[in-house]
Amino acid sequence: MRITQCLQQALLGVSIAAVAVGVRAEEPIQPIQPVKEINQALAELGKKLYFDPRLSKSGFISCNSCHNLSMGGTDNLKTSIGDKWQQGPINSPTVLNSSLSVAQFWDGRAADLKEQAGGPIANPGEMASSHTLAVDVVASIPGYVREFKLVFGGNEINIDRITDAIAEFEKTLVTPNSRFDQWLLGDADAISTFEREGYELFKTSGCVACHNGEAVGGNSFQKMGIVEPYQTQNGVEGRVAVTGKDADRFTFKVPTLRNVELTYPYFHDGEAETLTEATDVMGRLQLGRQFSDEENAKIVAFLKTLTGDQPQFLMPILPPSVDGTPRPQPFD
Amino acid sequence: MRITQCLQQALLGVSIAAVAVGVRAEEPIQPIQPVKEINQALAELGKKLYFDPRLSKSGFISCNSCHNLSMGGTDNLKTSIGDKWQQGPINSPTVLNSSLSVAQFWDGRAADLKEQAGGPIANPGEMASSHTLAVDVVASIPGYVREFKLVFGGNEINIDRITDAIAEFEKTLVTPNSRFDQWLLGDADAISTFEREGYELFKTSGCVACHNGEAVGGNSFQKMGIVEPYQTQNGVEGRVAVTGKDADRFTFKVPTLRNVELTYPYFHDGEAETLTEATDVMGRLQLGRQFSDEENAKIVAFLKTLTGDQPQFLMPILPPSVDGTPRPQPFD
Repeated sequence: MRITQCLQQALLGVSIAAVAVGVRAEEPIQPIQPVKEINQALAELGKKLYFDPRLSKSGFISCNSCHNLSMGGTDNLKTSIGDKWQQGPINSPTVLNSSLSVAQFWDGRAADLKEQAGGPIANPGEMASSHTLAVDVVASIPGYVREFKLVFGGNEINIDRITDAIAEFEKTLVTPNSRFDQWLLGDADAISTFEREGYELFKTSGCVACHNGEAVGGNSFQKMGIVEPYQTQNGVEGRVAVTGKDADRFTFKVPTLRNVELTYPYFHDGEAETLTEATDVMGRLQLGRQFSDEENAKIVAFLKTLTGDQPQFLMPILPPSVDGTPRPQPFD
Repeated sequence: MRITQCLQQALLGVSIAAVAVGVRAEEPIQPIQPVKEINQALAELGKKLYFDPRLSKSGFISCNSCHNLSMGGTDNLKTSIGDKWQQGPINSPTVLNSSLSVAQFWDGRAADLKEQAGGPIANPGEMASSHTLAVDVVASIPGYVREFKLVFGGNEINIDRITDAIAEFEKTLVTPNSRFDQWLLGDADAISTFEREGYELFKTSGCVACHNGEAVGGNSFQKMGIVEPYQTQNGVEGRVAVTGKDADRFTFKVPTLRNVELTYPYFHDGEAETLTEATDVMGRLQLGRQFSDEENAKIVAFLKTLTGDQPQFLMPILPPSVDGTPRPQPFD
C-alpha cells in the first residue's frame, strides 16, 4: 500500500514536472542556463586580463573598455574608440552570453571566444599592441607569473594561455533569470499581457525565425536587408570578408537580443539609436512588415523582458608592473 | 576584594593598551584608519557615477579611466589621456586615500573631493562635457532618478548632488592594513629588518619632513627642487597658478606615498618611471643627499610596505539610458 502511494506520488511528481517543463517546451526561445563546468582559477586570471589595459599599446584600453560589464557588455557607442581615438568600423557586440554564439565577431571570422580575444589586442585600430608585446608585458609582472604557474602548472606564458583565460572568464558572463526566462520556466505572472502580446507578435511576424534559441540570436548568419536593401554610410560588408562569396555580402551574424535594453545603439553600424527604431527597420527590411505604433511598442516591451541578471563580481585588483615591464606608449 | 581585582585588571588593561598604542605613538606616520561615518546609499550612487562614462562628452571616459581602482587609483601613465586622445598636462594622482589630502589636484586648486569631482567632467581636455550636459544625462536616466530620490529625498538632480555622491564614494577608498601599518600597530614581524632600516633612513635623511601623517604626504605644499632645480620639459608650474605668488612657482602638493608601489610613474610630470629613480631624484634635489645603491634599495623596500588593502567592491551595474538620453558625441 505504501509502495503504491509512493509510486503514485512519484508518478504524479513526474507528471507535474513534465507539465511544468512542458508548458514552454514548444517555445523557440530557451532559458539561459547558469554557468557550469568553469575552471574558476582560470576565469579569475581571465578577469584580471580582461580588465588590464596593459594588453594595449597605450596602456589605456582593456577588453572592458569596449565590452563594458557595467553597461551590458558594450560601450553603448555607435562604433568603438580605438588606439589614438581611432573610430572603429563597426558596433561592439555585447560580450554577455557571447559563449552561446555560433562564431565571434559580426562576420563570424573567429570560431570561438578564445580566437576572438586575440583579435583586438593586435588590431592596430583597437588595442594596437601585438601578441609578442602583450606576452612580454604579462610575463614581466610577478603577480601574473605566479598566477599563470598556479593555473597552468608551468612557467610558460603565451598568447594561447592569455586568450584561454580571457575566454574562460567570458564564459561566466551569462545572464540567466530574465523575466522572460521566469515566464518560460512557468511563472505566468513574470511578464505582463502587453509583453506577452509582444512576444506573440515577435513569433507570428517572423522575428523568431532568426532570433531564437537560448541567446535569442547569435546562432546564424543572415542578410541585412532581405525584403528591402539596408541603406548605410558604413562600408563594412559582413561575412563576404570571411567566405569570399558574393552571396555573403551584407550578411552578418544575427545579434543576440538578450539584454538588448542595455546594448544600444543597434545594428552592425550602430545607426539605430532606439529599440523602437530597430524594431521598425527590422520589420520593414527583413520581414516586409510595417508594425503599427502599438505593435512596435508591444515588441519593444517584450524585448525588455530579456534583460537578465547581470554578472556580479568583485572588481579585480591587477598585479603591478615592475621596473622591467615594457611601458605603455600612448602618444608615440 | 572582587572589586579590587576588577579595578586592578582594568588598570592593567589601560596600561597595556597605552603601551600597545604607545609603542609607535612617537612615529611621524600614523596608520590609515578604516572608513567611518559613510552614507552608504550616497556612496553606492557615487560608485555608479564614478564608473559612468556618460559623464563625459564621448561616453568613453569615466572617473575610473584615469583613477583606475584596479591599478592603485591611477592610470599608470606619465600624463593622462583625455577626450579625443588629448595628452593631459600632468600625472593623474591616485584617488586612494585622497580624502586625507589638505586639498585636491597637484596645485591644491580644489578644496575637497567634492569640488575636485566637478573639474574633469567639464575640462575640455579631460571628459569634455559640461555640468549642464552631465546633469541632463543623469536626469534622463530613470534608474538614476529613482536612486537620487531615494538618497536625497527629493527630485532634484544637479552637479552639487552628483559631485557629493562621487566624493562620498571616494571617501571609502582608503587602504588600511599595510604591512607598515601592522608594524605601527605593534606587530614587530610585519616588516623585515631591511625594510625597517629603509624606514629609519627615510626618517633620518629628512624624507619624513614632508611625507608624514596618515597618508605619508598629501598634507602640505612644497617646492619641487629645493637644493637643486628640477629639470623637466613639462610646463606646469604648480601652486603659483592658484595663489599668483611667485614663491609658489614649482610648488606642488606633496603626494601621498601610500600604495606608491602601485602608482607609478612618479612626480607631477610622471617622468620618474621607477621608485629607485624617484628616490634618487628626491634625495638629491630635495635633500642634497646622494643615496647609495643600498640605501636607495632600503628606502624602496620600506616604500613597498605602504601598500594597503585595496578597496574591494562589486563592479557597479549602471542604469541604462533611455530614448531621451542625450547621446555621447565621441567623434564630433
